[in-house]
Amino acid sequence: MTNEHLYSTDMSEKRPLRVVLAGFGTVGQSVVRLLRSHHSEVELVAICNRNVARKQSLPDAPEIIWTESIDDLLAQRPDVFIELIGRRSPAESWITRALNAGISVVTANKQVIAECGPSLLSLAATMGCQLRFEAAVAGGVPVIRGIESGLVADHLTGVSGILNGTCNYILTRMEAAGIPFDDALREAQRLGFAEADPGDDIDGLDARAKIAILAMVALGAAVTPASIVCRSISPVAAVDFPYARHLDCTIRQVAWVTADDSGGVSARVGPALVPMSSALARAQGSENLVIVTGRSGGDTTFGGRGAGGGPSAVAVVSDVLAIARGANAAVRPGPLTAITASPDFSAPFYVRFTINDRPGIIAAIASAFARHDVNIDAVLQEPGYPADRRPFVVSVEASPVAAVERALAEMTTFDFHVIAPFAMPVLVSAAIRSSASPGQ
Amino acid sequence: MTNEHLYSTDMSEKRPLRVVLAGFGTVGQSVVRLLRSHHSEVELVAICNRNVARKQSLPDAPEIIWTESIDDLLAQRPDVFIELIGRRSPAESWITRALNAGISVVTANKQVIAECGPSLLSLAATMGCQLRFEAAVAGGVPVIRGIESGLVADHLTGVSGILNGTCNYILTRMEAAGIPFDDALREAQRLGFAEADPGDDIDGLDARAKIAILAMVALGAAVTPASIVCRSISPVAAVDFPYARHLDCTIRQVAWVTADDSGGVSARVGPALVPMSSALARAQGSENLVIVTGRSGGDTTFGGRGAGGGPSAVAVVSDVLAIARGANAAVRPGPLTAITASPDFSAPFYVRFTINDRPGIIAAIASAFARHDVNIDAVLQEPGYPADRRPFVVSVEASPVAAVERALAEMTTFDFHVIAPFAMPVLVSAAIRSSASPGQ
Repeated sequence: MTNEHLYSTDMSEKRPLRVVLAGFGTVGQSVVRLLRSHHSEVELVAICNRNVARKQSLPDAPEIIWTESIDDLLAQRPDVFIELIGRRSPAESWITRALNAGISVVTANKQVIAECGPSLLSLAATMGCQLRFEAAVAGGVPVIRGIESGLVADHLTGVSGILNGTCNYILTRMEAAGIPFDDALREAQRLGFAEADPGDDIDGLDARAKIAILAMVALGAAVTPASIVCRSISPVAAVDFPYARHLDCTIRQVAWVTADDSGGVSARVGPALVPMSSALARAQGSENLVIVTGRSGGDTTFGGRGAGGGPSAVAVVSDVLAIARGANAAVRPGPLTAITASPDFSAPFYVRFTINDRPGIIAAIASAFARHDVNIDAVLQEPGYPADRRPFVVSVEASPVAAVERALAEMTTFDFHVIAPFAMPVLVSAAIRSSASPGQ
Repeated sequence: MTNEHLYSTDMSEKRPLRVVLAGFGTVGQSVVRLLRSHHSEVELVAICNRNVARKQSLPDAPEIIWTESIDDLLAQRPDVFIELIGRRSPAESWITRALNAGISVVTANKQVIAECGPSLLSLAATMGCQLRFEAAVAGGVPVIRGIESGLVADHLTGVSGILNGTCNYILTRMEAAGIPFDDALREAQRLGFAEADPGDDIDGLDARAKIAILAMVALGAAVTPASIVCRSISPVAAVDFPYARHLDCTIRQVAWVTADDSGGVSARVGPALVPMSSALARAQGSENLVIVTGRSGGDTTFGGRGAGGGPSAVAVVSDVLAIARGANAAVRPGPLTAITASPDFSAPFYVRFTINDRPGIIAAIASAFARHDVNIDAVLQEPGYPADRRPFVVSVEASPVAAVERALAEMTTFDFHVIAPFAMPVLVSAAIRSSASPGQ
C-alpha cells in the first residue's frame, strides 16, 4: 500500500514534471528507480554521466537520453535538474547555470550548499525557481523539512547531532568490541562504511559541512564552514570507553551549533562524551541522529539512515515531488553576509593522560589546571596498565575550552607524557553554552 | 536568533492571515503567545471560550474579541479557525461548519481526526480550504509533516510508536524504580503526567486514535479506530521488568500498524517487550517516539515532547504558518471507505504465570501450548518468591497471536493460577507481521 493514491485525482490533469539527472552512481540509480515509480507526476528525460557507453543500463527505458555533456542535459528544457555528481567543481557551476536558466535544482551536495547555500537560494528566489537539498544532510532523515515546516513556529536556539555514519560506526564498534581505532576503521572500510581515504569523515570535514547547512536552515546563520573548529576522532583509544563509562557516558562524534543572544553562533565538530541516557548515545552503527532545540518545543529528534542509495534517494525524490505538487520553496534565502562561528564554549572536560609513572605527576597536572582556573572534578585510574605507559583520566568541572587548552599547552613541557594528553568535552546538553567572556 | 527574518521580505506585502481560536486552556494560551510573536503574518482576531469573563487575560491586546459563541467566532470571517476544545462534540460540528464556510481549520483533536479525518479532508478539498492536524499526534513532534513531505517518495509499509506519554512515564518509572503499577500511576498523577481518570491513556484508547491517524497519513488506510485491538498496561507488574531483562528487553506501550500486500492493515495497541537496543526502548518519561518504515528508506524515527503547552503550540502555529505561507494541503483526501484493522499478527510472546506451586505445572502449560502448535523457547524463574504466589515466565517462539490466546484461554481451567496469565508480544521489528493464515 502506498500513499500515492491520495494524490491521484489532483495530479491526473497536470503534465508530469520534466526532470534531468547528473550522476548515475549508487544514489542516482536508486533515484531513477523511485522517479520511475512516480511516473504520473515526474518524467525522467535525460541522464548525464561520464562513460555513458559503460553506464547506460536502462534497456526498458529507451526514451531516456544519455549524455556526457551538461549542455545537452540543460538543453532538454527540464523543470528540475537533479545534481548528484558531488564535490564543488563542476557541480557548483552546473547548479548556477540551471538556476540562471530558471530550472529548479535538487541536490545532495553538502559542500556546495555549505559554501554557497545562501547565494544560490537567493539566485533561485530571483529566478522564481527552487533549490532543495534535503539529501545533503543526514541522508533519508527529513530534518530540513522538519525544521522548515514542522518547527517553523518555534524560536530555535541550537542543533546538535551525529551527522557522519563512518565515525559513528567506528566509535560504536570500538565501544561494543573493545577494539582499537585502527581495527575499527579497517573493519568499516572492509564493510563499505568507510572510504579508502577516510580523512574527510574522521577529521570532521564532512560533518562540518552538514552542521553549517543546519545552522543556515535552523538559525538563519550563514556560517563559514572553515570557521568551525574540527577535532579528529583518530586519537580516541579503546581505553577511553571504560573511562567514559565511569562518568556514565560514551563517546560519539558530535557536531553542534548554538545561537547566542547577539546574533552570533558557536559551533564545533569532534569527539565528545555524551551521557548514556542521551539520544546521542543511542545512535548505533552508521545511524544519523539530529536534535533540534527550540524555546517552546524543547528537544525534537530526527533519526535514521544517513547514507545509502535508498534513503538518500527518498530525500531527493521527495524534494522533486514537492516541486511537482506545487509546494513553495522549503528554505527561503537567508542573509548573504557570512559570519564566523565562535570556537568558545564552556563544558566539563574529560582529559586522558598517558604517562611514564613517577611521584608528583598528579600534583603537576593539578597545579597547571589551577593556574588557568580549571577545577578538577575527579581523577580516574583503572588498574592493570604498565607503569611506563599508564593511562588515567582527569575530569574537570565546566570550564571555557580556551582555558582547558591553555592549561594543556602548558603541560606539554612536562617530561612524563608517553602520548599527548587528549581532551574531549562532556556534552551534558545544558552545559554547551557559548562563553565569550571578556578578553577572549 | 530566529529563522523569522528569512521570510520578512516575502511577507511584507501580504496582509496577515486572520485567525480565530476556540479553547483557551494550556495549549491555547501557548498558541496565543506564539501567534502574537508572528504578528507580521498572522492576526489573532477572536477567542471563543467558556466563562469568558473569568478567562479573558490579555490586557495588552484589547483588540481581540472574546466570545462564548461559535457563531460570533466564525462571523469574524477568519482565514483560519484553530480548534483546541478537544473531544468529538461539539468540536466535530464546529470544524464542519468552518470548512463548509471555506475557512481552513487547524486542530489538535485526535478523536475527531481519527473518526472523521477522511471525510473532513474531502470536505476541505471540495471547499478549497485546508484541514491540518500536526498537533493531534505526538504533540510537537513533526511526524505528519515528515511523512507527508520528507518521506513522500517512499513506499511506506508500517508505523509503530510510543504515542502516549502517560503510559511511557508509568512504565519507565516502574523500570527505573522497581515500583508497582499503582505507585507509578499515583506518582504520574501527582506530577501532572496522568489525569485523575487515566482510563483512556492506560487502556490504550488515546494511542489508538493516534495510530489510526498515522495509518491514514502513512498508509492511506481509513482504519476504523474501534477495530484496533487495545490491551491495557495495568496488568504489567514490577516483576515483569527483571524478567524482560533476561530476554534483553524492556516493556513499553506500543501502538503499531502494518500494511499487508492486499490493501489491508494489521494494528494493535498495548504493552509489549521491546529490545533494549531498539529506538522504542530509548523513549524515557513522557517522551513520544514514532518509527516510520519504508521500502527504500528503512526506519526513520521522530522523537520529542508529545504533550505540554509549548510543543503542542509549536505544531499548531507551524500549521497556521504553513497556510499563511501558501503551502498546499499537507494531507490530501484519502479513501472514504473505512476499513477494519486485522487483529492477526505473529510474534514471539512473553507469558507470565503467577501460581500456587505444585509438581506438574510446567508439564500442564507445555501440553496446552503444544496442542495449539505454540513452541516454548525458554522458561524463566527467578528465586526468592513464595511458593503460593510464584511468578515465572514462559517465552514462546514466533506464533500467531490467536494461537497463543487460544492456548491461554484453555489454561484458565487450571487450578494453580493465583493471577491470570499475562501475555505480551516481543516486538523484534522483523517479527511484527500480519498472519492471516487460512481459517482465521
